[in-house]
Amino acid sequence: MAQTVFGYGCNILSSDQYTGARGSKLVEDIPRSETHAPCPDLTTGTYFQRIHLDFSELSVGVENVAVLEGALRSTAARFNMTMTVSYRARPQRLAILVSKLDHCLYDLLIRNRTGELGHCELAVVASNHRDMAPIAAQFGVRFVYLPMEGEDREAAKAAQEAKMEALFAEEKIDLIVLARYMQVLSDGFCERNSSRTINIHHSFLPAFEGGRPYHRAHERGVKLIGATAHYATAELDKGPIIEQDTERISHRDSVPTMVRKGKDLERMVLARAVRAHLDSRVMVFGNRTVVFEENT
Amino acid sequence: MAQTVFGYGCNILSSDQYTGARGSKLVEDIPRSETHAPCPDLTTGTYFQRIHLDFSELSVGVENVAVLEGALRSTAARFNMTMTVSYRARPQRLAILVSKLDHCLYDLLIRNRTGELGHCELAVVASNHRDMAPIAAQFGVRFVYLPMEGEDREAAKAAQEAKMEALFAEEKIDLIVLARYMQVLSDGFCERNSSRTINIHHSFLPAFEGGRPYHRAHERGVKLIGATAHYATAELDKGPIIEQDTERISHRDSVPTMVRKGKDLERMVLARAVRAHLDSRVMVFGNRTVVFEENT
Amino acid sequence: MAQTVFGYGCNILSSDQYTGARGSKLVEDIPRSETHAPCPDLTTGTYFQRIHLDFSELSVGVENVAVLEGALRSTAARFNMTMTVSYRARPQRLAILVSKLDHCLYDLLIRNRTGELGHCELAVVASNHRDMAPIAAQFGVRFVYLPMEGEDREAAKAAQEAKMEALFAEEKIDLIVLARYMQVLSDGFCERNSSRTINIHHSFLPAFEGGRPYHRAHERGVKLIGATAHYATAELDKGPIIEQDTERISHRDSVPTMVRKGKDLERMVLARAVRAHLDSRVMVFGNRTVVFEENT
Amino acid sequence: MAQTVFGYGCNILSSDQYTGARGSKLVEDIPRSETHAPCPDLTTGTYFQRIHLDFSELSVGVENVAVLEGALRSTAARFNMTMTVSYRARPQRLAILVSKLDHCLYDLLIRNRTGELGHCELAVVASNHRDMAPIAAQFGVRFVYLPMEGEDREAAKAAQEAKMEALFAEEKIDLIVLARYMQVLSDGFCERNSSRTINIHHSFLPAFEGGRPYHRAHERGVKLIGATAHYATAELDKGPIIEQDTERISHRDSVPTMVRKGKDLERMVLARAVRAHLDSRVMVFGNRTVVFEENT
Repeated sequence: MAQTVFGYGCNILSSDQYTGARGSKLVEDIPRSETHAPCPDLTTGTYFQRIHLDFSELSVGVENVAVLEGALRSTAARFNMTMTVSYRARPQRLAILVSKLDHCLYDLLIRNRTGELGHCELAVVASNHRDMAPIAAQFGVRFVYLPMEGEDREAAKAAQEAKMEALFAEEKIDLIVLARYMQVLSDGFCERNSSRTINIHHSFLPAFEGGRPYHRAHERGVKLIGATAHYATAELDKGPIIEQDTERISHRDSVPTMVRKGKDLERMVLARAVRAHLDSRVMVFGNRTVVFEENT
Repeated sequence: MAQTVFGYGCNILSSDQYTGARGSKLVEDIPRSETHAPCPDLTTGTYFQRIHLDFSELSVGVENVAVLEGALRSTAARFNMTMTVSYRARPQRLAILVSKLDHCLYDLLIRNRTGELGHCELAVVASNHRDMAPIAAQFGVRFVYLPMEGEDREAAKAAQEAKMEALFAEEKIDLIVLARYMQVLSDGFCERNSSRTINIHHSFLPAFEGGRPYHRAHERGVKLIGATAHYATAELDKGPIIEQDTERISHRDSVPTMVRKGKDLERMVLARAVRAHLDSRVMVFGNRTVVFEENT
Repeated sequence: MAQTVFGYGCNILSSDQYTGARGSKLVEDIPRSETHAPCPDLTTGTYFQRIHLDFSELSVGVENVAVLEGALRSTAARFNMTMTVSYRARPQRLAILVSKLDHCLYDLLIRNRTGELGHCELAVVASNHRDMAPIAAQFGVRFVYLPMEGEDREAAKAAQEAKMEALFAEEKIDLIVLARYMQVLSDGFCERNSSRTINIHHSFLPAFEGGRPYHRAHERGVKLIGATAHYATAELDKGPIIEQDTERISHRDSVPTMVRKGKDLERMVLARAVRAHLDSRVMVFGNRTVVFEENT
Repeated sequence: MAQTVFGYGCNILSSDQYTGARGSKLVEDIPRSETHAPCPDLTTGTYFQRIHLDFSELSVGVENVAVLEGALRSTAARFNMTMTVSYRARPQRLAILVSKLDHCLYDLLIRNRTGELGHCELAVVASNHRDMAPIAAQFGVRFVYLPMEGEDREAAKAAQEAKMEALFAEEKIDLIVLARYMQVLSDGFCERNSSRTINIHHSFLPAFEGGRPYHRAHERGVKLIGATAHYATAELDKGPIIEQDTERISHRDSVPTMVRKGKDLERMVLARAVRAHLDSRVMVFGNRTVVFEENT
């Protein structure tokens, strides 16, 4: 890769790599052969690389960057690598799906305005309720109301999702952010928008998958609450985790204070995940992610 | 209570209380009446109080402290309160159960020596293996080998636990610490030693209950690892949580590095829980705990 | 206190106390008598109490709550205690001072709207620049432009502060929040508004007091950045600390990324401090604070 | 570098790099031209690389690894790079300097025994007091008593340090760890052992440089305590920071509880720094460090 890049007169601004260690010994604890199945080899030896390059002095001319991309694709193919290219000149376009809770929406709107999300355009906010329309208006962002209509829930969802995907096509959306969107998306939607739909879940997954995580956390008497940003997949709350964090609570916390404290976790964890994605620092493999550090 | 204390010429050094809010509105999120059962009222209005008092000037004479204790018990009974008394003059006596992993054992031995655990006597280390004997010897603590013997696992466990409990009786043990003890204790043992047996589990419960939590955490691709100290109950890893904490990891972490990083979490979370218990700051109610802050 | 409260038929909803240990032995480290002055006794034995009470069934009638307040003041006076009373029925009124940075302002506006700040009314945003006017307008909050005018800086500041304090009087302001306000306030202003002016400083004080803390943090090569909320005093960045927090950084972080990551710290630390103050949980003594835990 | 490595038939196991961004705009806050000196360009464009390679199939034979090292040194010289080589086959040798506090010493002894420090040999513990001798003995590590002797402090220190450095030479020491060593080392010692002497300071530097940081932290009323591991330099507590961390405290904490809680911070921060150094992941430039992430 590097040689191809240099051969075309380009500069590498940063390069990160990571290799899943092959056949690493799994040394945990003690042998538990009676009680557990033999431990599969979790690591794969897969090689991941992220190259950030400057082609402003491309030998074949900047206007012929497709030539460079082609050459890189050949190299990738030769080594049986999967390759994704993104150009900074074109900001990624964002859609936010939201229901009735405003804290993540507000947070993304403000971070978008102050440039904290990175290089992107917030194209549209869509919702199954009308409640968030004034907030989108307050920030001058297009709002689209996409209700679930009709008695037949299956048909209603299918119709609503079809409109949603038409909207994303129209708006040339690159990334969909579920900012506390309270509808379960269909398997088809998840598959068609795989690795480009980020959800925020209000627990440290895999604990408290599904509904009412703060209630269940309170009931279990945990001393931490958490939030997790992950790519949405057909299986609810099971997708590849991008970012998660926790915060201490105590016996003094009730569900309402957990909800309030959790808002800060949700906002920050979601924002960090969106930023990493927009910066092309996230790579998905199987059900896990490589998230490269920021290079500044 | 305070009046009784003052009436006997005693001083209150510190007093902490907490009331579980009665009928607190549970305001989370949005109504989800279709998909969830109605939310039970999690809080109870129960009142918790911890009083630390100095009876060195007891009006009836220090040698008659039983009179004061009796008066307090009457007051407690009148208000239908449960009361526990502990005397600082008598250090609590500790037993550690351990298997083959030494990091929590070492940590407790050292904290005991440097006074970081609080007011206690480390009476005995017991194990189903001989591996830890030299470490106990190194710190001059009695070591007792309590193997599982015989073909019949049930009978072997019953016999081993009987010896264990005889040992605890002989050593006048107040608190049992499972410092990575890899045997599941019987329901009977857990019930007889309820609220005085602290276990350390190497995950942020309720995630990854049971065996091999680091392997499963790696497989799930989490970005945090955790540890949880809880009172052992008949149901594995379901007991009242005293303390838990997490630490960031990344895609670069393999199971062995998670195991290594987790050791620090396990050591600290267990030590904090043991210290809080020895300081009589932990109260159990249902499956949750009140852990009062240290007064210093 | 409690007896007075009960005597008037009132209920104590929560009660917190803390006593600075008297004459605590200072056991740090090793004797360093040659190299250090003798260590003064830092603690004082001062007693702090916060009582939250419900006077809806006041024996003399709710309309005569002044009678209760008088009785409490007598009790306080008898024990030589300082007492402050605040009534939940009257929300505290907030003024925000801001210059050209919008992240803390936005955050307070949104938390105010979503009820995360507690029981308050955001009365006015004032600034020495016009830049933030549209943001205040966006949230329907009064904006007042208070420039520094004239050649003579001393006179300009005096005139500006006089207008400011007139505005606070007019708006019946209880709490002033300096949300990255870049002007140094006069000693007189600080004294007159002592213990009711909260500033956010973008470092973990006492490190990097004064200007450009992120630049100096970068230059020093620290591995953490921080933020501190404190009551403004005449001495810059020396006031009683209410809340502070830190976040890990690495060699990869430049000043701009530290500035960006620091925004989240500043927002959260300031919001927590404002909330604690509005909830009457903060007590100042000397140059330190007691911040009682939330009771929920 | 990579080409040289491949040319000799070697494998790159991992490669990390970092470039200090050249001429990055420093965008903090607002222009403050009147009150501050112009901000120097803090970043340098310096390129850092760490390559971990496997020369088991070295084309010129493993026994001729000096040929490879020579070739790499030529390449480095050509590009005006500074290069350091370390061979995993030879574990680095450690000396610990300690005074009267045992917690960091105990921690390093145990981590050394359990392999948590990485690939090293703990050769010797040296002290200006005899107190720690039994602990070294307990772990079978050589203990050397190096007192300050004589009336003339300057001469005493010079003599003591000469013995110390002779001991390090004799024991072929690679890394010196100051595990709460309470003597100030001479400028000459610091210079001769530069970038190989790690100190732990019990505050988040640059706050509370020098003596009694917990007392001063208590007096200042901070809400966090911290610890910092750094390379010792002639200027006290001013050396390049390798690692630091903080922990929340509250008004309830006295100096003794801060001392106790700080022990955990000191232990962990020091252990992480020592591990990173032993793993050749730390590079010093000016007064800052690059600490590469672990590759596992």
